[in-house]
Amino acid sequence: MDSATTRKAIDLSHHLNELSRSRVASPLKDIIKYMKEPGIISLAGGLPHPSLFPFGEMNTKVYAPAVDLCSSEEPSWPIELFIPKNASPSHKNTLSAALQYGSSYGSVSLSSFIREFTSRVMAPAYSDFEILLHSGNTDAWNKVVNILCEYGDYILVEECTYPSAQALWAPMGCRGVPISIDKDGLIPESLESTLKNWEHTHPGVKRPHLLYSVPVGHNPTGATLSVERKKAIYKICVDFDIIICEDDPYYFLQFPPYVLPYQRKPQNAGAGSSDITSEIMAYDRQAYIESLIPTFLSLDVQGRVIRLDTFSKTLGPGNRLGYFVCNPLFAERLLRATEVTTQAPSGLSQALVEELLTTWGQEGYLRWLMGLRDSYTSRRNWMCDIIAENFDLLPSPLNIVDDVVAVQKGHGSTKDVVPFFSFSFPKGGMFLWIRILLVSNATYQNMKTTSSSNAIATARWAEAFWTDLIKEKILLTPGSYYTPIIGFNERMAQEPDVVFFRLAFSFETREMMQTGIERMANVFNRWWS
Amino acid sequence: MDSATTRKAIDLSHHLNELSRSRVASPLKDIIKYMKEPGIISLAGGLPHPSLFPFGEMNTKVYAPAVDLCSSEEPSWPIELFIPKNASPSHKNTLSAALQYGSSYGSVSLSSFIREFTSRVMAPAYSDFEILLHSGNTDAWNKVVNILCEYGDYILVEECTYPSAQALWAPMGCRGVPISIDKDGLIPESLESTLKNWEHTHPGVKRPHLLYSVPVGHNPTGATLSVERKKAIYKICVDFDIIICEDDPYYFLQFPPYVLPYQRKPQNAGAGSSDITSEIMAYDRQAYIESLIPTFLSLDVQGRVIRLDTFSKTLGPGNRLGYFVCNPLFAERLLRATEVTTQAPSGLSQALVEELLTTWGQEGYLRWLMGLRDSYTSRRNWMCDIIAENFDLLPSPLNIVDDVVAVQKGHGSTKDVVPFFSFSFPKGGMFLWIRILLVSNATYQNMKTTSSSNAIATARWAEAFWTDLIKEKILLTPGSYYTPIIGFNERMAQEPDVVFFRLAFSFETREMMQTGIERMANVFNRWWS
Repeated sequence: MDSATTRKAIDLSHHLNELSRSRVASPLKDIIKYMKEPGIISLAGGLPHPSLFPFGEMNTKVYAPAVDLCSSEEPSWPIELFIPKNASPSHKNTLSAALQYGSSYGSVSLSSFIREFTSRVMAPAYSDFEILLHSGNTDAWNKVVNILCEYGDYILVEECTYPSAQALWAPMGCRGVPISIDKDGLIPESLESTLKNWEHTHPGVKRPHLLYSVPVGHNPTGATLSVERKKAIYKICVDFDIIICEDDPYYFLQFPPYVLPYQRKPQNAGAGSSDITSEIMAYDRQAYIESLIPTFLSLDVQGRVIRLDTFSKTLGPGNRLGYFVCNPLFAERLLRATEVTTQAPSGLSQALVEELLTTWGQEGYLRWLMGLRDSYTSRRNWMCDIIAENFDLLPSPLNIVDDVVAVQKGHGSTKDVVPFFSFSFPKGGMFLWIRILLVSNATYQNMKTTSSSNAIATARWAEAFWTDLIKEKILLTPGSYYTPIIGFNERMAQEPDVVFFRLAFSFETREMMQTGIERMANVFNRWWS
Repeated sequence: MDSATTRKAIDLSHHLNELSRSRVASPLKDIIKYMKEPGIISLAGGLPHPSLFPFGEMNTKVYAPAVDLCSSEEPSWPIELFIPKNASPSHKNTLSAALQYGSSYGSVSLSSFIREFTSRVMAPAYSDFEILLHSGNTDAWNKVVNILCEYGDYILVEECTYPSAQALWAPMGCRGVPISIDKDGLIPESLESTLKNWEHTHPGVKRPHLLYSVPVGHNPTGATLSVERKKAIYKICVDFDIIICEDDPYYFLQFPPYVLPYQRKPQNAGAGSSDITSEIMAYDRQAYIESLIPTFLSLDVQGRVIRLDTFSKTLGPGNRLGYFVCNPLFAERLLRATEVTTQAPSGLSQALVEELLTTWGQEGYLRWLMGLRDSYTSRRNWMCDIIAENFDLLPSPLNIVDDVVAVQKGHGSTKDVVPFFSFSFPKGGMFLWIRILLVSNATYQNMKTTSSSNAIATARWAEAFWTDLIKEKILLTPGSYYTPIIGFNERMAQEPDVVFFRLAFSFETREMMQTGIERMANVFNRWWS
């Protein structure tokens, strides 16, 4: 029976680079083995005695998992987490341990909580997957590249990709291979044709063997891959022997579809978004789990997915704490890399997160994630509602892949409708991605006559428009930041006639969003007047 | 006037490797600059709103800085550190900030506390030194190697060197160049002759440009470099354009000289070591600072020292928090490397350490370090006293560099005295390093007749003896773990006829040390009977 409970990861050791293959286990491992022998006195380990750590005990007030995060009032912190200095029957998680040197595996009890959670929520498709704590997804990606990539390797990336991710590998001599995306994320056919034609387009060059993808609430485009696309991509990766690095910080922030205010059912009209979410969400944990699009890990029958999970978006980025889920061979090599670099995530972060999660329990943590999902759904709705208040939104014409086109307010039903930008309603994450359509913009037409190419005119327009937005005191992130690096000092050519900006709905209050998008609308109206 | 207050670091950019020279600043830096403009509304940053962090407020009980760490009673925690969720006039250090994405520089106020402390205690010899937080010295060393070393580089190391440090660079294709050491640490003449003869011994090979050294309480040998040696080494490094990586976790654990029980003044005889330390130490902070041997940083008029400082040995390793002190160019390159790897140390660790240090103040932190110094002095004394109780200690003959030779108890004044091992009384750190003298050991003589070389006989003897120690339930760290890696799968040849072990006095109680060293003495007595 080759089921998920008996299936094992296949041997993928040929993907390891020379650096990683050369790493050896520390000789101190022998020491640690003997330290555990009953009755042994160890003068071997160079550990400070815990009585010399100045921290005595720690009390931290935290939310109940069912807290209403959509409320405008400051929630209370009814639960107090207590971490004592030393262990007792009721407290295994102590400051003496948290402040001591720890295993690079990280806390065993935290890992085991995570394993149970991962098994339930993601149901990995093979049995010998491992959990390894890391210091946040940025460092985790660093470690992945450092075990898999050689100098000069090509890495498969989405056509818009996270700047810090490529800032890591570009100086290492690697290059991105951009794969086309649309409003639903990575396009499987583009991945397949890139790989099929590789020897033709890159004769004599080693084929890429690593795909980096943010599959849910993609940064920057906000796109979320459907399970059908994931299956198609996974199959291609099997066919072409590609390792998938699934960087998935927004996985638990998957939203129900956005409904425009004027299309909402009567009982919701004008009632604000919190009513919508409360209507949609019954706090049924199993329903929540089933509502989540399966991960690449869940489809991974071979162990070729390295999943990067993080508490950054769920419990706070400052914890610098997350975990790999991957096959045992890669986990062991990542552990070796951890031993000589970060050693382990902060023991304080581990202890506090462990105390929180074990106090909340599996059910509590799921409830917390549902509440977060609701909160970000509200925020997504705020931003979309506010855009709908400041622009007229029209269904996209066939040549535009996005959900809607935004035009000047009050012009949606007139004949001289001029599109400003198109966008899609985010189904997950923190970002909304606007595509400004320049063809009808007079300034752009002028710039084209004085630029050597349309691409240069587009870049000039983007810079000038961004600067003007800042003058109006509204800051967006330029889409050009996300252009893949495809060679030494060389970025992918940017599409002419369109300019992208990323808007985050994660941080500002509704009032600030309102003011900010009004300012943005003013600038649009002025630039098209 | 070229004084320390006006002198600037010289240009050492030619030491940077290609990886580091290729790193560019994140484009997001522009965004961060604009975010600070008054009145601006930012939809640019992908930060979660702090109301979505489940942690409300934190209370941590801590020691007073003047706590008696040598007391056998559990000290109390009279000070309560309070970290609120949100800022107020009395609290700048908040959980909202600690749990948020932070700058890779780390907390500005923590860095500024450290800068003041470093200026006072170490008085760097140039003015534009920078402080950059890191995630512990292991990760810091990883970052140093990753900005300075190319594949195939030779790195200058002590003849016994820290295993995790070389486990980092060996798989990167680097090789160690062992420099001779004695009981006082690195020998300047050995460093000089290695560099002078480099072209002769390594024709056509790039000369090493990086020295890795643990100058105080060396791991594993316990040796502490005198200021005279440091000056001589620094001068050689200037002459040969070497960067010094000063890995100095034990700097604040520098002890007064050890006095054998029978040589102590009458009032101390049999009174235990705490009396000695209380006699020696008046809690005069300036005297403490002056008692510390100046660092390489203090001698560094050019900015060629990268100092790795850590809170691991002073506030607890689990914090995973320390800091670089180095020239601005290297600090900037280390910052670029931090941005794409660890991003920043744990915000919780930063916040808690900042709250502790600012509550204690500069004077309090110095007092804490003095108390720690006393505590480790007591521990050093315990271990040396216990060895003196279980062996007879004789002055070393001229051919042995150590302070004393240990022989079988009761045989110190007999004619048939047989040396077991020699050692020196540690002047700092956590370790005591014994050199077992095999020439008079019958088992060793037998092994020599059945081994192809004396070195192989020595290794066989070490393995058998270590195994026997473990059978007696006493665990030491084999000296062979610290042998430098000098080529691919090649370690420095080990000295024949001597075997080394490292004993840590940092962790076990006095009673456990007593029992452990009694067991060790039994094994010695048996192996020489």
